[in-house]
Amino acid sequence: MAAARFDSTELPFSKYPAWVLGKLRPVAIEKIKAVHDWVETECIPAEPIMKAQLAKNRWKTPTLMKDLRQKAKERGLFNLFLPNHFKESPGLTNLEYSCCAEIMGKVYWAAQTMNCHAPETGNIELLAKYANEEQKETWLKPLMSGDFSSAYSMTEPEVASSDATNISIRIQRDSDEYVINGRKLFGNAKWNPEVQLYILMGCTDPNNPDPWKRHSMVLVPSDTPGLHMNLNLTIMGYDHAPEGHGEYRYDNVRIPASNVILGEGRAFEIAQGRLGPGRIHHCMRLIGQCERAYEFALLRATDERKKPRGKLIGQFDSNIERIASMRLELDALRLVVLNAADTMDTHGNKAGRYVIAQSKILVPEGAARIIDECMQMYGGQGLTQHTPLPEMWTYARFVGRDQLKTAKDVKKRHERYYEIAERLKREFELEDNLAADYMWEYLDLSTKAKL
Amino acid sequence: MAAARFDSTELPFSKYPAWVLGKLRPVAIEKIKAVHDWVETECIPAEPIMKAQLAKNRWKTPTLMKDLRQKAKERGLFNLFLPNHFKESPGLTNLEYSCCAEIMGKVYWAAQTMNCHAPETGNIELLAKYANEEQKETWLKPLMSGDFSSAYSMTEPEVASSDATNISIRIQRDSDEYVINGRKLFGNAKWNPEVQLYILMGCTDPNNPDPWKRHSMVLVPSDTPGLHMNLNLTIMGYDHAPEGHGEYRYDNVRIPASNVILGEGRAFEIAQGRLGPGRIHHCMRLIGQCERAYEFALLRATDERKKPRGKLIGQFDSNIERIASMRLELDALRLVVLNAADTMDTHGNKAGRYVIAQSKILVPEGAARIIDECMQMYGGQGLTQHTPLPEMWTYARFVGRDQLKTAKDVKKRHERYYEIAERLKREFELEDNLAADYMWEYLDLSTKAKL
Amino acid sequence: MAAARFDSTELPFSKYPAWVLGKLRPVAIEKIKAVHDWVETECIPAEPIMKAQLAKNRWKTPTLMKDLRQKAKERGLFNLFLPNHFKESPGLTNLEYSCCAEIMGKVYWAAQTMNCHAPETGNIELLAKYANEEQKETWLKPLMSGDFSSAYSMTEPEVASSDATNISIRIQRDSDEYVINGRKLFGNAKWNPEVQLYILMGCTDPNNPDPWKRHSMVLVPSDTPGLHMNLNLTIMGYDHAPEGHGEYRYDNVRIPASNVILGEGRAFEIAQGRLGPGRIHHCMRLIGQCERAYEFALLRATDERKKPRGKLIGQFDSNIERIASMRLELDALRLVVLNAADTMDTHGNKAGRYVIAQSKILVPEGAARIIDECMQMYGGQGLTQHTPLPEMWTYARFVGRDQLKTAKDVKKRHERYYEIAERLKREFELEDNLAADYMWEYLDLSTKAKL
Amino acid sequence: MAAARFDSTELPFSKYPAWVLGKLRPVAIEKIKAVHDWVETECIPAEPIMKAQLAKNRWKTPTLMKDLRQKAKERGLFNLFLPNHFKESPGLTNLEYSCCAEIMGKVYWAAQTMNCHAPETGNIELLAKYANEEQKETWLKPLMSGDFSSAYSMTEPEVASSDATNISIRIQRDSDEYVINGRKLFGNAKWNPEVQLYILMGCTDPNNPDPWKRHSMVLVPSDTPGLHMNLNLTIMGYDHAPEGHGEYRYDNVRIPASNVILGEGRAFEIAQGRLGPGRIHHCMRLIGQCERAYEFALLRATDERKKPRGKLIGQFDSNIERIASMRLELDALRLVVLNAADTMDTHGNKAGRYVIAQSKILVPEGAARIIDECMQMYGGQGLTQHTPLPEMWTYARFVGRDQLKTAKDVKKRHERYYEIAERLKREFELEDNLAADYMWEYLDLSTKAKL
Repeated sequence: MAAARFDSTELPFSKYPAWVLGKLRPVAIEKIKAVHDWVETECIPAEPIMKAQLAKNRWKTPTLMKDLRQKAKERGLFNLFLPNHFKESPGLTNLEYSCCAEIMGKVYWAAQTMNCHAPETGNIELLAKYANEEQKETWLKPLMSGDFSSAYSMTEPEVASSDATNISIRIQRDSDEYVINGRKLFGNAKWNPEVQLYILMGCTDPNNPDPWKRHSMVLVPSDTPGLHMNLNLTIMGYDHAPEGHGEYRYDNVRIPASNVILGEGRAFEIAQGRLGPGRIHHCMRLIGQCERAYEFALLRATDERKKPRGKLIGQFDSNIERIASMRLELDALRLVVLNAADTMDTHGNKAGRYVIAQSKILVPEGAARIIDECMQMYGGQGLTQHTPLPEMWTYARFVGRDQLKTAKDVKKRHERYYEIAERLKREFELEDNLAADYMWEYLDLSTKAKL
Repeated sequence: MAAARFDSTELPFSKYPAWVLGKLRPVAIEKIKAVHDWVETECIPAEPIMKAQLAKNRWKTPTLMKDLRQKAKERGLFNLFLPNHFKESPGLTNLEYSCCAEIMGKVYWAAQTMNCHAPETGNIELLAKYANEEQKETWLKPLMSGDFSSAYSMTEPEVASSDATNISIRIQRDSDEYVINGRKLFGNAKWNPEVQLYILMGCTDPNNPDPWKRHSMVLVPSDTPGLHMNLNLTIMGYDHAPEGHGEYRYDNVRIPASNVILGEGRAFEIAQGRLGPGRIHHCMRLIGQCERAYEFALLRATDERKKPRGKLIGQFDSNIERIASMRLELDALRLVVLNAADTMDTHGNKAGRYVIAQSKILVPEGAARIIDECMQMYGGQGLTQHTPLPEMWTYARFVGRDQLKTAKDVKKRHERYYEIAERLKREFELEDNLAADYMWEYLDLSTKAKL
Repeated sequence: MAAARFDSTELPFSKYPAWVLGKLRPVAIEKIKAVHDWVETECIPAEPIMKAQLAKNRWKTPTLMKDLRQKAKERGLFNLFLPNHFKESPGLTNLEYSCCAEIMGKVYWAAQTMNCHAPETGNIELLAKYANEEQKETWLKPLMSGDFSSAYSMTEPEVASSDATNISIRIQRDSDEYVINGRKLFGNAKWNPEVQLYILMGCTDPNNPDPWKRHSMVLVPSDTPGLHMNLNLTIMGYDHAPEGHGEYRYDNVRIPASNVILGEGRAFEIAQGRLGPGRIHHCMRLIGQCERAYEFALLRATDERKKPRGKLIGQFDSNIERIASMRLELDALRLVVLNAADTMDTHGNKAGRYVIAQSKILVPEGAARIIDECMQMYGGQGLTQHTPLPEMWTYARFVGRDQLKTAKDVKKRHERYYEIAERLKREFELEDNLAADYMWEYLDLSTKAKL
Repeated sequence: MAAARFDSTELPFSKYPAWVLGKLRPVAIEKIKAVHDWVETECIPAEPIMKAQLAKNRWKTPTLMKDLRQKAKERGLFNLFLPNHFKESPGLTNLEYSCCAEIMGKVYWAAQTMNCHAPETGNIELLAKYANEEQKETWLKPLMSGDFSSAYSMTEPEVASSDATNISIRIQRDSDEYVINGRKLFGNAKWNPEVQLYILMGCTDPNNPDPWKRHSMVLVPSDTPGLHMNLNLTIMGYDHAPEGHGEYRYDNVRIPASNVILGEGRAFEIAQGRLGPGRIHHCMRLIGQCERAYEFALLRATDERKKPRGKLIGQFDSNIERIASMRLELDALRLVVLNAADTMDTHGNKAGRYVIAQSKILVPEGAARIIDECMQMYGGQGLTQHTPLPEMWTYARFVGRDQLKTAKDVKKRHERYYEIAERLKREFELEDNLAADYMWEYLDLSTKAKL
């Protein structure tokens, strides 16, 4: 019956693999359609307006954005991301939400119109999971309602913060307050008055012998005295206004002791829990971004005004190869992301760790390659603001990981191969020094190995 | 219930995505387990024996192979590949067979023990689909029974045969016979007496105005006088004995007129039909081959005897990166192949054309990269026969295709965006020459485009 | 004697190949030293000042730049680029100037302090070569003196202007004036009042049967009425102020007929002449830019504050590999550029066409890869303005060309091989159908080829 | 005068950079011409003969090879490689010899016809440098005269022998003899009776506290009892007969004590000395091999018989791009090798260490890419023995190294930048918190760094 609800040869459904179409419930199909219509009708055509409003006032949320958020909320398109084990969730599975998120990715700011943008999504999930009732009332509710905006503050300039145990900003207890001193990079810019909350990870107990218990997660209202923003960090030249990426200095910033989340020393417990589906939202949107870039490539390839040596750009077989190769790679990346979402739905977030990592590593790399190829098709113009391609390109980077633990099993199996092979050797009365002799080497891993 | 039948944390099931596990029927789970046991117990440990027997007699099928084929047939592991719409099929879906094929890929010759090797699979499918009853009785039956072996003969040295309309070998009617003259590359070597049939594509009507009706497909018994094999073609130095790749000369080779398949001039119709699931068996097996290569990489990484600068090879972080990246890419390639198989099951072979192409292009390229990385971990030794890696590497090469047709739809959507954007511009009373002005360019694709 | 003048183990000389050191004349050694001191002392440390002044007034040349230009002129560091066949040249060979240009490349704006920046260099060379005496007096002299600045205006938005015969902007004679109408991209921004001249290529005779005679090159003062700048084009998000890249509209722009260079219809003749050494200045500077990026990578690799998992970033062997590979590739690229310069010195600009193309294609691609690797070593911070790496990265893109003409000679040689081989075959009484038989195929290219 | 001796537009001189042509002495020009004629006339056309003779008797040096070696010796083309500081040298500089070696590379076995093949070249250089007079009389003289052939035996299967201190084969003194026990990989095959000498590195003093004094280099006649060859190692499937790569077992092999070179414990001293120009001969020949591969690509691109979709393969612009990109990369690689040779000539072998490493890393990688591209142009046929491309491809693999030591100088310079910048800041009265403020970070590397 669900099958009757959509046309698998039309956008957005024509992009999804057969096994995904088979898993979408009617409620999700409705939402996916609604998101598709929303982005196609309200977002893509509104890009010039958004750009123009931002050009006039760089650090203020454009009125168009406010209008669209209000409208999306009324249409039931708010907070779609929230996993269905939260009572506040609209009820989509991760796989179903992935389909929505891809569509949102077509326009940089479309997710924000639906309150599905970073870091809001991660922060909302964190608060829904770990905040106490009072904290939820004060912060979670208005965030979900879109009344204001929040930031997540973790990276530091002075340490290798990719290893979070190095985080050094000090949070010191002083009677019923905490006093914060240090520096942070990359939280949203407080130049935008919408940003009213910082969720900050810092060090409360530097001498605790257990390095996983030294840190805490606290709530810092953005208007707290002593919280200075030095600078907005640009990413490959883009300021990403009006959200931006602040470089912050905390000079004796004081917050109530009740602003600690879950309890002192429990930051890693929370950070761990934050490793949920939110971690691949970014990848899902990147797929949509690539689809948009790909559309630009097709448009350029068939632009009647551009005919070097008398042929359309898309009539050169080198470009046909380029387009085919983008198409194939992009569809493979989508399989990776959708599989990650589905694995979380089926086996849980924890079992999903590997597939999440797979998405987070492969998708940004692949997306950068695809968007770069699209830019190439536009020649010099591809680097300018005449298309959104350069801005798209800047959303891509990554990680690395350990597989050696599985070697043990492999070895065990090889020991068994060797036993059988020795038996076979006797059965077939195989002599020594034959052409195959060297093959014992990779069967025999024991210290007796003669080769 | 099916879920109770296997342990998803154990090989081979631990390698399959959640959505695939959910689709495997109990009957398939049994077969997959049986194939896994077969390859682990009868094939991998027997590699040295097979190598040794072949070294003694290069162009004769080893007795071990004959024994194994007999045994596999008795165990119900023969012809698993045949799609379930054929009455001779053992009943696996393409997705289910893919899981089997991956396992077979771990050893070069394992598929042959199960009569699931190329070109047998393609030829059997072709005969099952297009041969008449008499032809089936004479050729299909013994092929399925494994009594002898067949070859497929298409590529030619003198023309660009990637474009099959160029195929030039002449098949001329002479009363109740056809006379064949010309040259072919790449059919299995008739030096091996097991090869008793050639399915040959040639030109019967070179002057037919319709280029798609000039060619026919015929059955040529290998002992027909005039069929000469000049040479065995090596692939990157490998002779691939005892199957090999012949370079053939047809000098007045005469076959009965009844040996034409489907009818004169219908070769393209048959070739089209041959574009079924068989086209990705190769990709499925490549995944298994990569898994095997990956295991070798893990073994080398943890080999206690190899410690340059005092560390295990797998303790260098550059190698950890290499291993992680192989793992991630390999799992992404599996998703591509399994999705292709599932798409054929769900939407049919025709709808599967794109996903088949996707597999055929991405998998061989990716597999060559992965196996190459594995060889690198073995240093100079990685290039020798001390591991099967170099032999594995030589299974990779490929294609290219057109996506420009979809540009029309994209254009249509962009025209609509432009209309909405113009309306919005009026609504928001946007002036000209603002920062966003250039964005009209990529919205307006009409000839009026001012930029 | 020259050898006594510098220490080949110290910068900048330690970077040059032995064969280059052997060709540097004492006069050049002095200049190279002076340029090195200039960039090390006056430019690199002044980067924050330049940035700060530009932040205050985006479209005005900073006073620091004006001061430095005055100072550099006094020190004899102006116009070093001008090839020594011009009477105005300071006398460096292309090879010698390359060494200077590399050093200039370390800071984006250093070349400008020495009046060696694009498009000034190309425009000065063009005027020195093709302008008449009056034009030289009015425009060349002040440009060389650094009194004002110029732009080159060629690319158009509506056509594929990579093929310059497509250029469509109209230049129409109207008694003793020309009237210009159309659009252009990428000339320097006239928002900066220093830009006082446009050298523009346009179409004067669209119906001339010879497509190479339809265009003319004219001089357009920037304050001519009707010359409108719509927008500044950003490059990957950078505005490149205060020079920028304008998007222009010419509405009935009127210039005196005497402003045509060389004569009507001779634009391609001039453009051809512009294909001199100036075309690789950009590549030379890119090498210096990469050296700077490489230094940042080294600094990060040895930064004591950044120790993920307790080790310096440069102690991870994956990073050691990265650094080694950058170093090797960068030095190979330098060889390419220096060889191009030397070839022009030895054989002339025309003979240098191939090596120029080689530089223009290989260097930007390689440089982008190298700078990207450097950014990776800085993690997320590498994408921000905390280092100049992202800005550096945006200087890279390129071309493609024909080598098939040389196939004729190759064929001729192969025909000779075949003759000799046939003689040898007789001499050695080689029989047919041996293992080597197929080798005749690639020796015999004639139509008789039997394979 | 030298300039008058060759035509720089003709092969082989047309391939050399201007700066190289300027350094070739008349004597070298004559040799280069002679080598070119030799390879073009005696080697390339004789390839089928050599192949056919080898096919008949795999482990015997073909009579054609013997004839050619005799002829080359008579023509003064023997031992050209020997650096001119040896009294036996024919007197070419490394740069001049590089030009010869490139030409030799066009045919796999051409260097051998001139006694310029590995491992002969390294062994001859080693003996010329370190052997005593008696050893020279017995071994060096006949090797230079081409009377027999030698092998170099270093790699071992049981240890990570890339780190040579791990080498474990035991050489034990027993009165006036040494007794050798252990295993070795990769010395030439003793199946070929021409191979009469092994230069072997082994361990004489495993307990010496200085790991660099534990090993010795000894001379082992190939007919010594106890020296067993188990197997010939194939390289990517090629046996490289009749030289091959043996896998050896030493069972109580006894040699006279006088067969130690230079003295016990001095193997590393010798190995160090072996790191001379011989290390890049391989790279030089690879360039020639790529030129040959490139010629095959051109031939295929213009083969009139191969016209997929009605166009020559070389008329597809994707192939034009491929050819251009091979051409450019190949010429860049030649610059790298020639620069390495010239640096050794100018600054000595020791100073040449870096450029040798550069060649050894970049050239094999690049060559493999180029040859692979050439194979692609031949489609499936490109993988067979129909061209020598697959065999060529298998000559490529490599290394990695440290550049971090140079970081100290970079740091020192940055400290100076910072001092100047601080002075400038005061002079220009720059305020804090401006847009440029963050730039102090990368100028200030001291512990005071505030960011």
